[in-house]
Amino acid sequence: MKYKNYPMVSRIIFGRGSFNQLGDILSTKRLNAKAPFIFLVDDVFKGNSWINSRIPIAYDDQLIYISANEEPKTSQVDEIVEQIILTHKERPSGIIGIGGGTILDLAKAVSIMITNKGEAKDYQGWDLVKNEAIYHVGVPTISGTGAEVSRTTVLTGPEKKLGINSDYTPFDQVILDPELTKDVPKDQWFYTGMDCYIHCIESLNGTYLNAFSQSYGEKAFELCKEIFVENNLSDEEAQDKLMMASWHGGMSIAYSQVGVAHAMSYGLSYLLGTKHGIGNCIVFNHLEEFYTEGVKLFKQMKKYHGITLPEGVCADLDDYQFDIMIDVALGLEPLWENAIGKNWKQVITRDKLKTLYQKM
Amino acid sequence: MKYKNYPMVSRIIFGRGSFNQLGDILSTKRLNAKAPFIFLVDDVFKGNSWINSRIPIAYDDQLIYISANEEPKTSQVDEIVEQIILTHKERPSGIIGIGGGTILDLAKAVSIMITNKGEAKDYQGWDLVKNEAIYHVGVPTISGTGAEVSRTTVLTGPEKKLGINSDYTPFDQVILDPELTKDVPKDQWFYTGMDCYIHCIESLNGTYLNAFSQSYGEKAFELCKEIFVENNLSDEEAQDKLMMASWHGGMSIAYSQVGVAHAMSYGLSYLLGTKHGIGNCIVFNHLEEFYTEGVKLFKQMKKYHGITLPEGVCADLDDYQFDIMIDVALGLEPLWENAIGKNWKQVITRDKLKTLYQKM
Repeated sequence: MKYKNYPMVSRIIFGRGSFNQLGDILSTKRLNAKAPFIFLVDDVFKGNSWINSRIPIAYDDQLIYISANEEPKTSQVDEIVEQIILTHKERPSGIIGIGGGTILDLAKAVSIMITNKGEAKDYQGWDLVKNEAIYHVGVPTISGTGAEVSRTTVLTGPEKKLGINSDYTPFDQVILDPELTKDVPKDQWFYTGMDCYIHCIESLNGTYLNAFSQSYGEKAFELCKEIFVENNLSDEEAQDKLMMASWHGGMSIAYSQVGVAHAMSYGLSYLLGTKHGIGNCIVFNHLEEFYTEGVKLFKQMKKYHGITLPEGVCADLDDYQFDIMIDVALGLEPLWENAIGKNWKQVITRDKLKTLYQKM
Repeated sequence: MKYKNYPMVSRIIFGRGSFNQLGDILSTKRLNAKAPFIFLVDDVFKGNSWINSRIPIAYDDQLIYISANEEPKTSQVDEIVEQIILTHKERPSGIIGIGGGTILDLAKAVSIMITNKGEAKDYQGWDLVKNEAIYHVGVPTISGTGAEVSRTTVLTGPEKKLGINSDYTPFDQVILDPELTKDVPKDQWFYTGMDCYIHCIESLNGTYLNAFSQSYGEKAFELCKEIFVENNLSDEEAQDKLMMASWHGGMSIAYSQVGVAHAMSYGLSYLLGTKHGIGNCIVFNHLEEFYTEGVKLFKQMKKYHGITLPEGVCADLDDYQFDIMIDVALGLEPLWENAIGKNWKQVITRDKLKTLYQKM
């Protein structure tokens, strides 16, 4: 048996207001006055001076606002990289992503594509990246995806939705400032938080489970229960704990894998552009068969927080479209092997997946 | 408020048998045929072919057996560094520590002192190290100290027992192979496991606590209870979980601090050479006043596992000797501030500490 040698985020700050230290951190990383820092910032923060006044722009640094309304695309990565190369004579000193999973994944991918030839789609898969990425920093402003800690950056390409999984993907620096999540709308808070919850369920119930992933997964699961079920926390405590849940949930799947919900949700996203958090929820809601207890508690939390999920998202799809989703989902072999075991192909048939998708 | 920007271990492997991958890992890190890897190995493994046959020695690599019977010393670090420099023409490709906290701390310190002038004692303190350490790998063979994850290497110097705390201290690579701990003697298993338990208690009850440290500390505490109290685990599960408890306990104090037990235990070690694990136990056993519930559970575990602690270790000491211990303990200001709060000097007097030491 050969084990993964997992690359970790190099440095981490945690604390309310730690975002204020971004300037100090970057000042030691600037290569020269002409090598800019590129800030990729969720465009919900346009005009938000509470955030923007603290983004330490200097010299030729550039701030690019990015919409997180759609899942990140390989073509989008290529466009941002081109824009950076055309605007600046020197290679940037670093890329700083400030936002949720979409922005963080874009920041990771852009930092890789600055130093690697070709297009982002060429690197979707496992360990295809040749050259070290440039310095990159992640500042999550919404908690749950675990993008701040993982060695992947999940992108929708022309042929597939799949991550750039590489040792160069993890951030060199992460700033965990829970205060930055205070204005996340409730439905988004729930969907993204549930991404973390589902990571735990899929990791803890997977065949790849090991004591490493279990300890992280159990802790993230406990934190999710404190936040979404028990509800005895102050707003600040809930923000702090959800940020840590996201981190631990990310570490849990880092060393194991996700499962059925993620595989099927990737299919939905690829075909319909469904955002990852809500997509996971839509799928997971129908997975009692695989995760009985986990789905039961999920429904309880959904009810408790008054969340209504979209229904019938697959109602008008034709067979061709179902086939596309099923192809994407079945392509994620490690996820199925983790969820079901080595003989997963005997259980997970195309018909089975179609029946499940039809319920959604 | 300024937060710590914590440097993480760069890479981590977890799994039973993962030690077999050491050769593969090192092969990509060898600078050239004349730049050796130096393996610092606990001398309990002398003649142990189960371990030794898997240490991938090649070219001019050197294996140095080291006794862990005493706490690591700054003078010992200087001697090992001198031995390495005199034996090899080229700077080593890396230092690999295979052992418990003593060996791991020596490996970290040696990797620093290869690239920094002067003596190890010059760097005892916080952020005194100027130059990056050489590549260094930690392979724990006993679980609990958290040395595999921390940014310190605790050394006894001529004037003090204090760590070299620096951003260059953490390992570049850690191999967590719980199987390597299978032959640890029971008393040692208990004392070192309790080091982890005490880390959790001190972190969770400290004024420096934050959601980051809390989540790690709570998980490590839960794992300690599974291992030392509930006792429903197979040997293998207990080994796996204790290795993760040590990791999480280390992460918990990494981002907060230890407390009364560690401060006073450093005094004992400095004066009497008491090993860290047992020293912590001897001290903690008398700290009901500070950690009521924690000490209660500790005594339960001690009884359950039939552990008898030495008594009267301070019985024959004179005032001069008490003063030495008290000076060492009081010198560790952050530990006291974490344990008691900013006004700790009003509570922790020299008389108070003497009275406590006299009980031990």
